[in-house]
Amino acid sequence: MTLIVDCHGHYTTAPAQHDDWRAKQVEAWKEGGKAPPYPTITDDEIRETIESNQLKLIKERGADVTIFSPRASRMAHHVGDQDVSAEWSHHCNNLIYRVTKLFPETFVGVCQLPQSPKADLKASIAELRRCVEMGFVGCNLNPDPGGGHFEHPPLTDEYWFPLYEEMCELDVPGMIHVSGSCNPAMHATGGFYLAADTVAFMQLMEGDLFARFPKLRLIIPHGGGAVPFHWGRYRGLADMLKKPALSEYIMNNVFFDTCVYHQPGIDLLADVIENKNILFGSEMVGAVRGIDPETGHYFDDTKRYVDALDITDEERHMIFEGNARRVYPRLDKLLREQGR
Amino acid sequence: MTLIVDCHGHYTTAPAQHDDWRAKQVEAWKEGGKAPPYPTITDDEIRETIESNQLKLIKERGADVTIFSPRASRMAHHVGDQDVSAEWSHHCNNLIYRVTKLFPETFVGVCQLPQSPKADLKASIAELRRCVEMGFVGCNLNPDPGGGHFEHPPLTDEYWFPLYEEMCELDVPGMIHVSGSCNPAMHATGGFYLAADTVAFMQLMEGDLFARFPKLRLIIPHGGGAVPFHWGRYRGLADMLKKPALSEYIMNNVFFDTCVYHQPGIDLLADVIENKNILFGSEMVGAVRGIDPETGHYFDDTKRYVDALDITDEERHMIFEGNARRVYPRLDKLLREQGR
Repeated sequence: MTLIVDCHGHYTTAPAQHDDWRAKQVEAWKEGGKAPPYPTITDDEIRETIESNQLKLIKERGADVTIFSPRASRMAHHVGDQDVSAEWSHHCNNLIYRVTKLFPETFVGVCQLPQSPKADLKASIAELRRCVEMGFVGCNLNPDPGGGHFEHPPLTDEYWFPLYEEMCELDVPGMIHVSGSCNPAMHATGGFYLAADTVAFMQLMEGDLFARFPKLRLIIPHGGGAVPFHWGRYRGLADMLKKPALSEYIMNNVFFDTCVYHQPGIDLLADVIENKNILFGSEMVGAVRGIDPETGHYFDDTKRYVDALDITDEERHMIFEGNARRVYPRLDKLLREQGR
Repeated sequence: MTLIVDCHGHYTTAPAQHDDWRAKQVEAWKEGGKAPPYPTITDDEIRETIESNQLKLIKERGADVTIFSPRASRMAHHVGDQDVSAEWSHHCNNLIYRVTKLFPETFVGVCQLPQSPKADLKASIAELRRCVEMGFVGCNLNPDPGGGHFEHPPLTDEYWFPLYEEMCELDVPGMIHVSGSCNPAMHATGGFYLAADTVAFMQLMEGDLFARFPKLRLIIPHGGGAVPFHWGRYRGLADMLKKPALSEYIMNNVFFDTCVYHQPGIDLLADVIENKNILFGSEMVGAVRGIDPETGHYFDDTKRYVDALDITDEERHMIFEGNARRVYPRLDKLLREQGR
C-alpha cells in the first residue's frame, strides 16, 4: 500500500481576515506606523477553508498527505522590510501550524522564510528553527526575494551558507520557490515561477555547492521549470563547463516535483529524470484551477498523470511516497509515529 | 525532395579581428573616446571561418540552408549606448551580409538590431530596413536588452509598436532572442535564454498583440523555453485569464524552433505543439558544442531528432522547409529565384 504524499501544497484559501490584516500591515508600513493586532481566526473558520477546498480535492483525487506551506505568491518578500517580512511570515506559518494540528493525518508543515531583499538570513534562520520545533519538515526558499529582477546572489553564493548550515543541522530540505512579481514584464505563475526554477538549476550547475553541503537537499518545483525538457542542453552544458555528469554533482541533492499539468510533460519528466529524483506534487489549489477540456479533468490533478506513467509499481511508490520520506526525514518520522 | 532549412544559426566563429575591434570599441567608449577604424577582413578569412565550421557541419549533417545572424551572446545591448550599439550592429550585420554573398546557396541573413536599454527603436528600425534592402529576411529582437534583469517593457507594450509596424510592412519575422547576461545570478545560455523564451511567451499570452498586428510573426527559440513542457499549464492559464484558446490568439503568430538537444524533448515538442508552428533549428555552432555520450552524436545535431520523429513525411516537410518559407516570405522568394 502506497501513501500518496503531495510535496507541494500552499494555503491559497486562507481565511479572508488573514489577507486583510496583511493589507493593513503593508499600509501601516508605508505610512510609517505600526500594524494592527492580528485578527482572531477560529478553528472552525480554518476547518471550513480547508474542508471545502484542499481536503475535498485530496479525497476526491485519492491522495493522503500534503506538505503544506503558506501561499507562495503572497510571501511577497519584496514588500516592506525585514520586520514586515518577519511579522507576516510568523502569522503565515502559525496558520499552517494550526492546519497541521486540526488535520494531523493530512497536512504537514513547511514554512515561509522571512526573507527580505536587503537583509541577511538571521531572521530566516530563527523562523526556520521555530517552525521545525513546531513540527515543520522543510522550508520554501526564495531565490529572488526582490520579486522579478533576479538581483539576489546566486544560490551558490556564501550569502546563503548560514541558512544551508541550519537546514543541514535540522535535516530539512528547501523548496526553491519565488513569490509574486513586482515586474510588469514578468507574470508570476506563467513566467517568473518557471524562469526562476530554470535559472536556479543553472546556478547550482555552475557552482559546486553540494561538495560543501553534501546533506543539503533542494526541491525545484514545477517539474524543474524548463530543465527536463532541455535535459540534453544541461548535460551538454555540464560537459562544456568541465563539470562531472549531472548525476554525480547535482542529482544527489536536487529533486523535481510533478507540477506539470499535462500527460506528455509528466511522461518526459519520468523518462529523462531518474525516478529517485521525482517527488509527487500538485501545487493544488494553486496556479491553474480549471478543468482541461481535452481530458475533462483538473489540470492540476497530477496524480492521474503519474498513475498513467509506464513505470513499475516500485518506481511509482518512490515518486508517491518513498522519495518524500527520504528527502523530508522529519516527515518520515512523523508518519512512523502515526503508524504509517 | 525537402530542402532542410535551419532557422537558427549564429556567426559564432567570426574572424578574431571582428571581436578585437569590438573590445576596442567598448574600451574607447568607456574612456570617452572614439572607436578605431573597423579592420580589414578578407573574403578568404571569412570563407575559412565558415568552411571549417558551420559549412562543414551543415554538409555532414545534411542540411541545405541556414538562416544566419550575428552571434547572439555578443549582441550585448547592455554595453555602451545607442551609438555604440548602432556601430557594432552595423559591422556585425555587414559581416553576415558578406557571408550570404560568399555562400548564397547556404546562408540567408537575419540582422541584429541596435537596441539599447534607454533608447527608443528608431535606430533599430533604420538598421532593419538597411539589412532587408541588402537581402536579409528577418531580425533578432531582444526582449531584455538590459542583459538579465528583465527591466524592459513587455513585448505587448506600445514601446515596441513602431518596430512591429516596420516588421509587418517589410514582411519579416523576428526571433525573440536575448543576449549575454551581465547578471552574476543568470548564466546566459543555461539560464537567461530559456527564462527569456518562457517569459516572452507569457507576455504575449497576457496581451492581445496579434489582434493589433495580425501579420506579425515571432519565433521563440530553444523550443519555446519551458513552454511546450508546460503546455497544460499555459492552456490552463489562458483559461484563467479568460482568453481564447492559445491556438486562436497566439499560435497563428508564434513559432518554436527545434533547438532542444535530446530526442525526448523533440518528441514532446512535436507531440504537443502543432507542427505548423515548429521550425527546424539547431543554433549550431552555438551554446552546446559537445558530443552526447549517450548517443555518440553532437547534442546540437537536431536534424537527427526530427528525422526520428514518428510523424508523416508531409509533417516533416513542414518542419524542415514549408513553415520556414511561410514564416519568412523573403526567404521563400530568394529560394524561388534560385530555382528551389
